[in-house]
Amino acid sequence: MVIFVDMDEVIADTYGAHIEVYNKDFNENLTLDFFHGSEAWHKVPKDRQQSVRDHARNRGFFRNLKPIANGQEVLKKLSEKHEVYIASAAMQFPNSLEEKSEWLDEHFSFIPWENRILCGHKHILRGDVLIDDRSYNLKTFEGRSLLFTSPHNVNTTGFERVNNWLEVADKLL
Amino acid sequence: MVIFVDMDEVIADTYGAHIEVYNKDFNENLTLDFFHGSEAWHKVPKDRQQSVRDHARNRGFFRNLKPIANGQEVLKKLSEKHEVYIASAAMQFPNSLEEKSEWLDEHFSFIPWENRILCGHKHILRGDVLIDDRSYNLKTFEGRSLLFTSPHNVNTTGFERVNNWLEVADKLL
Repeated sequence: MVIFVDMDEVIADTYGAHIEVYNKDFNENLTLDFFHGSEAWHKVPKDRQQSVRDHARNRGFFRNLKPIANGQEVLKKLSEKHEVYIASAAMQFPNSLEEKSEWLDEHFSFIPWENRILCGHKHILRGDVLIDDRSYNLKTFEGRSLLFTSPHNVNTTGFERVNNWLEVADKLL
Repeated sequence: MVIFVDMDEVIADTYGAHIEVYNKDFNENLTLDFFHGSEAWHKVPKDRQQSVRDHARNRGFFRNLKPIANGQEVLKKLSEKHEVYIASAAMQFPNSLEEKSEWLDEHFSFIPWENRILCGHKHILRGDVLIDDRSYNLKTFEGRSLLFTSPHNVNTTGFERVNNWLEVADKLL
Protein backbone atom coordinates (compact mmCIF):
# COMPACT_ATOMS: atom_id res chain seq x y z
CA MET A 1 0.00 0.00 0.00
CA VAL A 2 1.25 3.50 -0.87
CA ILE A 3 0.46 6.01 1.91
CA PHE A 4 0.98 9.78 1.57
CA VAL A 5 1.28 11.84 4.74
CA ASP A 6 1.07 15.62 4.84
CA MET A 7 3.51 17.55 7.07
CA ASP A 8 2.01 20.74 8.54
CA GLU A 9 -0.72 19.99 11.09
CA VAL A 10 -0.31 16.23 10.56
CA ILE A 11 3.23 15.33 11.63
CA ALA A 12 4.44 18.86 12.45
CA ASP A 13 2.69 21.18 14.90
CA THR A 14 2.51 24.29 12.71
CA TYR A 15 -0.60 25.61 14.43
CA GLY A 16 1.08 25.48 17.82
CA ALA A 17 4.04 27.41 16.40
CA HIS A 18 1.72 30.09 14.96
CA ILE A 19 0.26 30.64 18.42
CA GLU A 20 3.66 30.64 20.09
CA VAL A 21 5.11 33.22 17.68
CA TYR A 22 1.94 35.35 17.88
CA ASN A 23 2.01 35.38 21.69
CA LYS A 24 5.67 36.37 21.66
CA ASP A 25 5.22 39.09 19.01
CA PHE A 26 2.20 40.68 20.68
CA ASN A 27 2.80 39.78 24.30
CA GLU A 28 -0.39 37.70 24.49
CA ASN A 29 -1.31 34.41 26.14
CA LEU A 30 -3.72 32.85 23.67
CA THR A 31 -4.16 29.09 23.82
CA LEU A 32 -5.33 26.48 21.32
CA ASP A 33 -8.96 26.54 22.57
CA PHE A 34 -9.34 30.13 21.40
CA PHE A 35 -8.63 29.10 17.79
CA HIS A 36 -11.08 26.20 17.65
CA GLY A 37 -12.78 26.03 14.24
CA SER A 38 -10.74 28.58 12.35
CA GLU A 39 -7.43 29.40 10.71
CA ALA A 40 -4.91 30.98 13.09
CA TRP A 41 -4.90 34.25 11.11
CA HIS A 42 -8.72 34.57 11.14
CA LYS A 43 -9.08 34.81 14.91
CA VAL A 44 -6.64 37.62 15.63
CA PRO A 45 -7.32 41.36 15.18
CA LYS A 46 -7.37 42.47 11.54
CA ASP A 47 -4.17 44.52 11.80
CA ARG A 48 -2.27 41.47 13.04
CA GLN A 49 -3.51 38.96 10.47
CA GLN A 50 -0.79 39.57 7.90
CA SER A 51 1.83 39.12 10.60
CA VAL A 52 0.48 35.63 11.34
CA ARG A 53 0.28 34.75 7.63
CA ASP A 54 3.90 35.83 7.24
CA HIS A 55 5.20 33.38 9.88
CA ALA A 56 5.57 30.83 7.10
CA ARG A 57 8.02 33.11 5.29
CA ASN A 58 10.29 33.51 8.31
CA ARG A 59 13.58 31.59 8.22
CA GLY A 60 13.58 28.98 10.96
CA PHE A 61 9.80 28.75 11.35
CA PHE A 62 9.47 25.28 9.79
CA ARG A 63 12.81 24.02 11.11
CA ASN A 64 11.74 24.34 14.74
CA LEU A 65 8.25 22.83 14.70
CA LYS A 66 7.43 20.20 17.30
CA PRO A 67 6.39 16.77 16.03
CA ILE A 68 2.72 15.92 16.53
CA ALA A 69 2.17 13.35 19.30
CA ASN A 70 2.65 9.68 18.33
CA GLY A 71 3.31 10.46 14.67
CA GLN A 72 6.84 9.14 14.79
CA GLU A 73 6.03 5.77 16.39
CA VAL A 74 2.99 5.12 14.21
CA LEU A 75 4.69 6.13 10.95
CA LYS A 76 7.71 4.00 11.85
CA LYS A 77 5.45 0.95 12.17
CA LEU A 78 3.47 1.86 9.05
CA SER A 79 6.66 2.26 7.02
CA GLU A 80 7.75 -1.25 7.96
CA LYS A 81 4.63 -2.67 6.33
CA HIS A 82 3.83 -0.11 3.63
CA GLU A 83 5.38 2.41 1.26
CA VAL A 84 5.09 5.65 3.27
CA TYR A 85 5.69 9.04 1.62
CA ILE A 86 5.72 12.48 3.16
CA ALA A 87 3.93 14.91 0.82
CA SER A 88 3.94 18.60 1.71
CA ALA A 89 2.60 21.49 -0.39
CA ALA A 90 5.78 23.37 0.46
CA MET A 91 6.55 24.96 -2.90
CA GLN A 92 4.52 28.00 -1.82
CA PHE A 93 7.30 28.84 0.67
CA PRO A 94 10.72 28.33 -0.94
CA ASN A 95 12.40 29.25 2.35
CA SER A 96 10.78 26.19 3.91
CA LEU A 97 12.16 23.59 1.49
CA GLU A 98 15.57 22.92 2.99
CA GLU A 99 14.20 23.38 6.51
CA LYS A 100 11.61 20.70 5.87
CA SER A 101 14.26 18.35 4.57
CA GLU A 102 16.39 18.94 7.69
CA TRP A 103 13.37 18.60 9.95
CA LEU A 104 12.57 15.21 8.42
CA ASP A 105 16.22 14.17 8.83
CA GLU A 106 15.92 14.98 12.53
CA HIS A 107 12.48 13.64 13.38
CA PHE A 108 11.64 11.11 10.63
CA SER A 109 15.05 9.82 9.56
CA PHE A 110 13.47 6.45 8.71
CA ILE A 111 11.72 8.11 5.75
CA PRO A 112 14.49 8.31 3.09
CA TRP A 113 14.79 11.13 0.55
CA GLU A 114 13.26 8.91 -2.12
CA ASN A 115 10.00 8.98 -0.12
CA ARG A 116 9.78 12.74 0.40
CA ILE A 117 7.68 14.99 -1.82
CA LEU A 118 7.50 18.78 -1.75
CA CYS A 119 4.78 19.85 -4.15
CA GLY A 120 1.82 22.11 -4.81
CA HIS A 121 -1.37 20.45 -6.05
CA LYS A 122 -1.74 16.96 -4.60
CA HIS A 123 -4.04 15.49 -7.22
CA ILE A 124 -0.90 14.41 -9.08
CA LEU A 125 -0.20 11.80 -6.37
CA ARG A 126 -0.84 8.17 -7.27
CA GLY A 127 -1.38 5.90 -4.29
CA ASP A 128 -3.78 4.30 -1.85
CA VAL A 129 -4.10 6.57 1.19
CA LEU A 130 -3.68 10.30 1.80
CA ILE A 131 -3.60 11.66 5.36
CA ASP A 132 -4.04 15.44 5.25
CA ASP A 133 -5.66 18.26 7.19
CA ARG A 134 -6.85 20.13 4.08
CA SER A 135 -10.12 19.07 2.48
CA TYR A 136 -9.11 20.51 -0.91
CA ASN A 137 -6.21 18.07 -1.01
CA LEU A 138 -8.33 15.11 0.04
CA LYS A 139 -11.19 15.91 -2.36
CA THR A 140 -9.13 15.29 -5.50
CA PHE A 141 -7.24 12.23 -4.26
CA GLU A 142 -8.15 9.00 -6.02
CA GLY A 143 -7.56 6.71 -3.03
CA ARG A 144 -8.74 6.62 0.59
CA SER A 145 -8.72 10.10 2.12
CA LEU A 146 -8.23 10.60 5.87
CA LEU A 147 -8.87 14.05 7.31
CA PHE A 148 -6.43 14.64 10.16
CA THR A 149 -8.03 16.86 12.79
CA SER A 150 -6.59 20.35 13.16
CA PRO A 151 -8.16 23.43 14.83
CA HIS A 152 -9.08 24.85 11.43
CA ASN A 153 -10.98 21.76 10.18
CA VAL A 154 -13.01 20.64 13.23
CA ASN A 155 -16.24 21.70 11.50
CA THR A 156 -15.42 20.13 8.13
CA THR A 157 -17.68 17.23 7.24
CA GLY A 158 -17.85 14.65 4.48
CA PHE A 159 -14.51 12.96 5.12
CA GLU A 160 -13.28 9.96 7.06
CA ARG A 161 -11.70 11.65 10.07
CA VAL A 162 -8.74 10.74 12.25
CA ASN A 163 -8.34 12.81 15.43
CA ASN A 164 -4.79 11.74 16.23
CA TRP A 165 -2.08 9.24 15.33
CA LEU A 166 -3.44 6.52 17.60
CA GLU A 167 -6.63 6.56 15.50
CA VAL A 168 -4.51 6.29 12.35
CA ALA A 169 -2.81 3.25 13.88
CA ASP A 170 -6.21 1.70 14.63
CA LYS A 171 -7.30 2.15 11.04
CA LEU A 172 -4.15 1.26 9.12
CA LEU A 173 -1.96 -0.99 11.26
CA MET B 1 -3.60 16.18 -20.25
CA VAL B 2 -1.22 16.16 -17.27
CA ILE B 3 2.43 16.39 -18.37
CA PHE B 4 5.38 15.94 -15.99
CA VAL B 5 8.74 17.39 -17.02
CA ASP B 6 12.04 16.56 -15.32
CA MET B 7 14.53 19.37 -14.63
CA ASP B 8 18.17 18.22 -14.85
CA GLU B 9 19.17 17.31 -18.40
CA VAL B 10 15.67 18.12 -19.69
CA ILE B 11 15.05 21.81 -19.07
CA ALA B 12 18.32 22.59 -17.23
CA ASP B 13 21.77 21.87 -18.69
CA THR B 14 23.29 20.06 -15.72
CA TYR B 15 25.65 18.02 -17.88
CA GLY B 16 27.10 21.17 -19.42
CA ALA B 17 27.67 22.59 -15.95
CA HIS B 18 29.45 19.42 -14.81
CA ILE B 19 31.89 19.79 -17.72
CA GLU B 20 32.37 23.51 -17.09
CA VAL B 21 33.13 23.03 -13.38
CA TYR B 22 35.40 20.06 -14.11
CA ASN B 23 37.40 22.01 -16.72
CA LYS B 24 37.80 24.89 -14.31
CA ASP B 25 38.78 22.70 -11.33
CA PHE B 26 41.36 20.67 -13.28
CA ASN B 27 42.40 23.15 -15.93
CA GLU B 28 41.10 20.94 -18.73
CA ASN B 29 39.27 21.60 -22.01
CA LEU B 30 36.96 18.62 -22.34
CA THR B 31 33.88 19.03 -24.54
CA LEU B 32 30.52 17.27 -24.68
CA ASP B 33 31.65 14.81 -27.41
CA PHE B 34 34.13 13.25 -25.00
CA PHE B 35 31.31 12.24 -22.64
CA HIS B 36 29.05 10.63 -25.27
CA GLY B 37 27.34 7.54 -23.87
CA SER B 38 28.28 7.85 -20.23
CA GLU B 39 27.74 9.67 -16.94
CA ALA B 40 30.02 12.69 -16.52
CA TRP B 41 31.79 11.10 -13.52
CA HIS B 42 32.50 7.83 -15.36
CA LYS B 43 34.70 9.35 -18.06
CA VAL B 44 37.17 11.25 -15.90
CA PRO B 45 40.20 9.74 -14.07
CA LYS B 46 39.26 7.68 -11.01
CA ASP B 47 40.77 10.12 -8.52
CA ARG B 48 38.59 12.93 -9.89
CA GLN B 49 35.27 11.07 -10.01
CA GLN B 50 34.15 11.98 -6.50
CA SER B 51 34.84 15.63 -7.25
CA VAL B 52 32.43 15.52 -10.20
CA ARG B 53 29.80 13.67 -8.16
CA ASP B 54 30.09 16.32 -5.46
CA HIS B 55 29.21 19.19 -7.84
CA ALA B 56 25.56 18.60 -6.98
CA ARG B 57 26.28 19.35 -3.31
CA ASN B 58 27.91 22.71 -4.04
CA ARG B 59 25.85 25.79 -3.21
CA GLY B 60 25.07 27.66 -6.41
CA PHE B 61 25.51 24.69 -8.77
CA PHE B 62 21.82 24.30 -9.57
CA ARG B 63 21.04 28.02 -9.38
CA ASN B 64 23.32 28.86 -12.30
CA LEU B 65 22.40 26.18 -14.85
CA LYS B 66 21.63 27.27 -18.39
CA PRO B 67 18.18 26.40 -19.74
CA ILE B 68 18.15 23.70 -22.43
CA ALA B 69 17.48 25.11 -25.91
CA ASN B 70 13.83 25.72 -26.82
CA GLY B 71 12.49 24.31 -23.55
CA GLN B 72 11.03 27.63 -22.45
CA GLU B 73 9.09 28.36 -25.66
CA VAL B 74 7.76 24.82 -26.04
CA LEU B 75 6.73 24.46 -22.39
CA LYS B 76 5.04 27.85 -22.52
CA LYS B 77 2.90 26.67 -25.42
CA LEU B 78 2.27 23.28 -23.83
CA SER B 79 1.19 24.90 -20.57
CA GLU B 80 -1.44 26.95 -22.40
CA LYS B 81 -3.11 23.74 -23.58
CA HIS B 82 -2.25 21.26 -20.85
CA GLU B 83 -1.52 20.92 -17.13
CA VAL B 84 2.29 21.05 -17.08
CA TYR B 85 4.24 20.11 -13.94
CA ILE B 86 7.95 20.25 -13.28
CA ALA B 87 9.01 17.10 -11.39
CA SER B 88 12.58 16.87 -10.16
CA ALA B 89 14.09 14.13 -7.96
CA ALA B 90 15.76 16.90 -5.98
CA MET B 91 15.27 15.57 -2.44
CA GLN B 92 18.64 13.81 -2.72
CA PHE B 93 20.33 17.23 -2.59
CA PRO B 94 18.66 19.44 0.05
CA ASN B 95 20.96 22.32 -0.92
CA SER B 96 19.36 22.31 -4.36
CA LEU B 97 15.75 22.76 -3.26
CA GLU B 98 15.55 26.53 -2.86
CA GLU B 99 17.94 27.04 -5.78
CA LYS B 100 15.64 25.03 -8.02
CA SER B 101 12.65 27.07 -6.92
CA GLU B 102 14.54 30.30 -7.67
CA TRP B 103 15.77 28.94 -11.00
CA LEU B 104 12.20 28.14 -12.01
CA ASP B 105 11.10 31.64 -10.94
CA GLU B 106 13.74 33.08 -13.25
CA HIS B 107 13.44 30.84 -16.30
CA PHE B 108 9.98 29.25 -16.07
CA SER B 109 7.93 31.83 -14.20
CA PHE B 110 4.83 30.72 -16.12
CA ILE B 111 4.90 27.45 -14.13
CA PRO B 112 3.37 28.42 -10.75
CA TRP B 113 4.39 26.88 -7.42
CA GLU B 114 1.30 24.68 -7.48
CA ASN B 115 2.79 22.90 -10.53
CA ARG B 116 6.26 22.25 -9.13
CA ILE B 117 7.26 18.96 -7.55
CA LEU B 118 10.52 18.11 -5.81
CA CYS B 119 10.50 14.43 -5.04
CA GLY B 120 12.41 11.15 -5.00
CA HIS B 121 10.73 8.16 -6.59
CA LYS B 122 8.58 9.23 -9.53
CA HIS B 123 6.24 6.25 -9.64
CA ILE B 124 4.00 8.19 -7.26
CA LEU B 125 3.10 10.61 -10.07
CA ARG B 126 -0.36 10.32 -11.58
CA GLY B 127 -0.66 11.78 -15.07
CA ASP B 128 -0.48 11.24 -18.81
CA VAL B 129 3.06 12.06 -19.96
CA LEU B 130 6.50 12.02 -18.31
CA ILE B 131 9.48 13.60 -20.07
CA ASP B 132 12.68 12.47 -18.34
CA ASP B 133 16.27 11.53 -19.13
CA ARG B 134 16.36 8.62 -16.65
CA SER B 135 15.02 5.26 -17.78
CA TYR B 136 14.37 4.17 -14.18
CA ASN B 137 11.90 7.03 -13.79
CA LEU B 138 10.19 6.30 -17.11
CA LYS B 139 9.95 2.55 -16.52
CA THR B 140 7.57 2.83 -13.58
CA PHE B 141 5.39 5.64 -14.97
CA GLU B 142 1.84 4.57 -15.83
CA GLY B 143 1.39 7.01 -18.74
CA ARG B 144 3.33 7.83 -21.92
CA SER B 145 7.08 7.96 -21.25
CA LEU B 146 9.38 10.14 -23.35
CA LEU B 147 13.14 9.64 -22.98
CA PHE B 148 14.82 13.03 -23.39
CA THR B 149 18.25 12.57 -24.95
CA SER B 150 21.23 13.31 -22.72
CA PRO B 151 24.88 12.23 -23.17
CA HIS B 152 24.42 9.49 -20.57
CA ASN B 153 21.40 7.84 -22.23
CA VAL B 154 22.25 7.85 -25.95
CA ASN B 155 22.63 4.06 -25.90
CA THR B 156 19.46 3.38 -23.90
CA THR B 157 16.80 1.55 -25.92
CA GLY B 158 13.20 0.53 -25.35
CA PHE B 159 11.73 4.00 -24.91
CA GLU B 160 10.04 6.57 -27.13
CA ARG B 161 12.85 9.09 -27.54
CA VAL B 162 12.87 12.86 -27.99
CA ASN B 163 16.23 14.38 -28.94
CA ASN B 164 15.33 18.00 -28.19
CA TRP B 165 12.43 20.31 -27.40
CA LEU B 166 11.45 20.78 -31.04
CA GLU B 167 10.77 17.05 -31.22
CA VAL B 168 8.67 17.32 -28.06
CA ALA B 169 6.69 20.10 -29.75
CA ASP B 170 6.14 17.88 -32.81
CA LYS B 171 4.79 15.08 -30.67
CA LEU B 172 2.69 16.98 -28.12
CA LEU B 173 1.63 20.32 -29.60
